[in-house]
Amino acid sequence: MIANKNPSACALIIGNEILSGRTKDVNLNFIAGRLTELGIRLLEARVIPDASDVIIDTVNECRARYDYVFTTGGIGPTHDDITAECIAKAFGVELAQHPEARKLIAGMCEKNGVELNEARLRMANVPEGGVLVNNPVSGAPGFKMENVFVLAGVPRIMQDMFAGCESHLEGGRKVKSRTVIAYLAEGIIAEPLRELQAGYEHVEIGSYPFYTDGKFGTNLVLRSDSDASLLEALKEVAELVRRLGADPEVE
Amino acid sequence: MIANKNPSACALIIGNEILSGRTKDVNLNFIAGRLTELGIRLLEARVIPDASDVIIDTVNECRARYDYVFTTGGIGPTHDDITAECIAKAFGVELAQHPEARKLIAGMCEKNGVELNEARLRMANVPEGGVLVNNPVSGAPGFKMENVFVLAGVPRIMQDMFAGCESHLEGGRKVKSRTVIAYLAEGIIAEPLRELQAGYEHVEIGSYPFYTDGKFGTNLVLRSDSDASLLEALKEVAELVRRLGADPEVE
Repeated sequence: MIANKNPSACALIIGNEILSGRTKDVNLNFIAGRLTELGIRLLEARVIPDASDVIIDTVNECRARYDYVFTTGGIGPTHDDITAECIAKAFGVELAQHPEARKLIAGMCEKNGVELNEARLRMANVPEGGVLVNNPVSGAPGFKMENVFVLAGVPRIMQDMFAGCESHLEGGRKVKSRTVIAYLAEGIIAEPLRELQAGYEHVEIGSYPFYTDGKFGTNLVLRSDSDASLLEALKEVAELVRRLGADPEVE
Repeated sequence: MIANKNPSACALIIGNEILSGRTKDVNLNFIAGRLTELGIRLLEARVIPDASDVIIDTVNECRARYDYVFTTGGIGPTHDDITAECIAKAFGVELAQHPEARKLIAGMCEKNGVELNEARLRMANVPEGGVLVNNPVSGAPGFKMENVFVLAGVPRIMQDMFAGCESHLEGGRKVKSRTVIAYLAEGIIAEPLRELQAGYEHVEIGSYPFYTDGKFGTNLVLRSDSDASLLEALKEVAELVRRLGADPEVE
C-alpha cells in the first residue's frame, strides 16, 4: 500500500435514479480524480437510495470511519430532496434556516425574477452548526457539517461546490501515476509482473485489460508517492513489455 | 415505496482504478438497468478497493442483507486479481481448480495459440461449491456462489456474463417508468408536486433538475408496478406542468 498516512475519504452518491439505471452517475469520477490530485485517498463510494433511514445510517457509519465524506444529490426544493434533513438527524441537531443561505437564495430569485416561495426556501435549511459551501452557479449553497460535505447532484453545480470545499480539505502527499500500454494479453504478463511488484513496496502496480477494435491489451498503471521509485519501476515495466515482444507505450 | 416485495440486490464494483478516478465505471449503470427490467430492486452499490479484508467484509455484509449480490472486477490472471480468493474466504471454503473452467480456459488458449501458463490457470480457480457462469467472449468464466455473482470488470465481458446469470435470477413485478420533461425550474413545481405525490401511494415520483444549453429544466420521473396508477399520475403531472405555463414533453 502507498501513502497510507494520507487522509481518507468516502463518497455517497444519493439517488434512486442512479440505482434504477435511468441516470449514469458522473460525480464519482470527478470527486475521485480531484481527491487523488489533492493527495486524499478515496477508499469507498456508495450509491444509496433517497430513503431517510439508509441515508442517516450510512452517513453515520462513514463519517466515523473516514476523514472526509462527500455526499451528492437530494438538496433541491422537491419532496424527494431529503439529504439536508437526514444529515441533521444523523448529527442529532435541528434543521434550521441559515440566514446567509436565505440571502443567497433570495438574491438568486430576485436576479432571475422568480418568486421566493416555500419550496425554494427549503434550500436554505441547513443543520445547526453547518457551514455553507459556496455555489456560484445557482445560488443555493451546499454545506459542510463537521467532516461531511453535502453537495448537489447536478454535475455542473456539484463541481463548482467541490471547488468551494477545497479550502476546507487537508491533502496529503501527492500520489503520481504513470501508465504503460502493452498490446499483450494479461495472461502473458501476469507472472513476471507479480515478481516485479513484489520488489516495489512503495509502488502499486495495477493491471487493467482492455478490448478495443478487436485487440486485447493491458494498461499497466503504476502509482506512488515516491518519484524515484515510480521512475525506476516504470523503466522495469517497460523493459518487461519489450522483453515479451511488444512495443510499450509510456504515458 | 413501490414493489417492495420484489427481490433486492447490491452491486459491488471492485477496483482501485475506479476510486483513483483513472477509470470511469460503466458497469453499475448496465447492471442497474438490467435489474430494473427484471423486476429486481438494486438497493445499493459500493465501489471498494482491491483490498482483501475490505472485499471479504463487504461481501459478507451484503450477501446477508440482499437477495442478490453482483461483483465486478478482479477475476483476471494478475497479482491484483484477488476477488475469487476473497469470495472463498468470505464463504469459508477452499479455492480450487474447477475442471470445467480449466477446460474452457485451455480451449481458449489453444484457439488463440497461447500458452496455458500458471497465470491463466489462476482464472480456473473457483470457491468450492461455486457454479460457473458462461462467458462467450474470452473463455474465462465468472461464477455464482450461493446468491453472489462474480463477474469480470471489462464491460463487454461483464455484460455477456450478466446475460449468463439471468437464468439464475428470479425477478419480480416489473416496475415501469414514464417521464415528463418540463422546462420549468424545480422551485416552481416543487410544492404542487409534493401534494400530487401524496395522493399516489403506488407511484414514486422523482424530480431531477437538469441544466442544458443554458436552460434549466426538470425531468419528472414516475415509476410504478401498476399500469393504471402510472397512467393516471402521468396525466396529472402533465396537466400540472401545463398549468404552470410550460409545454410538457411526455416520454
